[in-house]
Amino acid sequence: MTLDGGSRELLETDKSLEIERKFLVETLPDNCDRESYEHIVQGYLAITDDGTEVRLRRKGDQYFQTVKGPGDMVRSEYEIELTPEQFTALWPATCGMRVEKARYDIAYEGLTIELDVYHGELEGLRIAEVEFKSTTESTSFVVPRWFGTEVTKDHRYKNKHLALVGLHDTASIACI
Amino acid sequence: MTLDGGSRELLETDKSLEIERKFLVETLPDNCDRESYEHIVQGYLAITDDGTEVRLRRKGDQYFQTVKGPGDMVRSEYEIELTPEQFTALWPATCGMRVEKARYDIAYEGLTIELDVYHGELEGLRIAEVEFKSTTESTSFVVPRWFGTEVTKDHRYKNKHLALVGLHDTASIACI
Repeated sequence: MTLDGGSRELLETDKSLEIERKFLVETLPDNCDRESYEHIVQGYLAITDDGTEVRLRRKGDQYFQTVKGPGDMVRSEYEIELTPEQFTALWPATCGMRVEKARYDIAYEGLTIELDVYHGELEGLRIAEVEFKSTTESTSFVVPRWFGTEVTKDHRYKNKHLALVGLHDTASIACI
Repeated sequence: MTLDGGSRELLETDKSLEIERKFLVETLPDNCDRESYEHIVQGYLAITDDGTEVRLRRKGDQYFQTVKGPGDMVRSEYEIELTPEQFTALWPATCGMRVEKARYDIAYEGLTIELDVYHGELEGLRIAEVEFKSTTESTSFVVPRWFGTEVTKDHRYKNKHLALVGLHDTASIACI
């Protein structure tokens, strides 16, 4: 028995790649409009030892599921939008692996800096992420003065560590 | 900052549990209607070391995503139906972790036996699964004569092993 025509079509979708760098932020920039941000609540369905993540995210009134492959600067990424009902049905499975933050989108020299201000158990943590179109663009990026230490490859700031352990080895958002 | 009203609602969904036993099958039963089965193609988005699985499944013309928690006989389970477009967008992320089988549903003393006849790299493998409403029902189950060895707790027959390694240490369905 072989896959029928419908299944073969399913195998031909292109793979997406995500290229990004991540920095700690201590002082917010002057042009960071504190009224313009989105609440993000996210939880993980699974995080494997090789770094593969299956993440649920509520961003404003939209719901997403994202699968990210292993890696630091370059990772595969597959994302779909979920209906509120789909999200609600899966959300309980993220218990113990949740993170809450406000996201500011800041324009910077043709790029968008995503500044995440964490809340809940991670209160006080601020991380800026920049996504690039190529590794060349990534390595030639001129770091803004208000960025702190780069943590792209620091395992303590990976989503797995933040969601499972937190910054102070405490649990994240409580499960009701 | 705390979760708003909408987020709190999302936390209150009930957890589902799955109670099942699994057996090898060498000889198919007489009442197994060989014309009445469904093709199942499934792939895993993630399988963690503790046994948590995030699985995509195409069953006939329907598409599902299931999150199963760790465990042998009793596991948590959360399932949603996906649109064909959602399934197609996520399917490439299952590359290297796919399984193909035909499923026969067989009525047996008020229960349903799910008989899976594997194809592809797992050709020749047949596994019968029975799902129960309680652990009492599970332990008092009278095993049909055509069932072979019970493998409920045998790690070699767990989905992780079958999808990642196969029966003969070969890869599963090729990725195109």
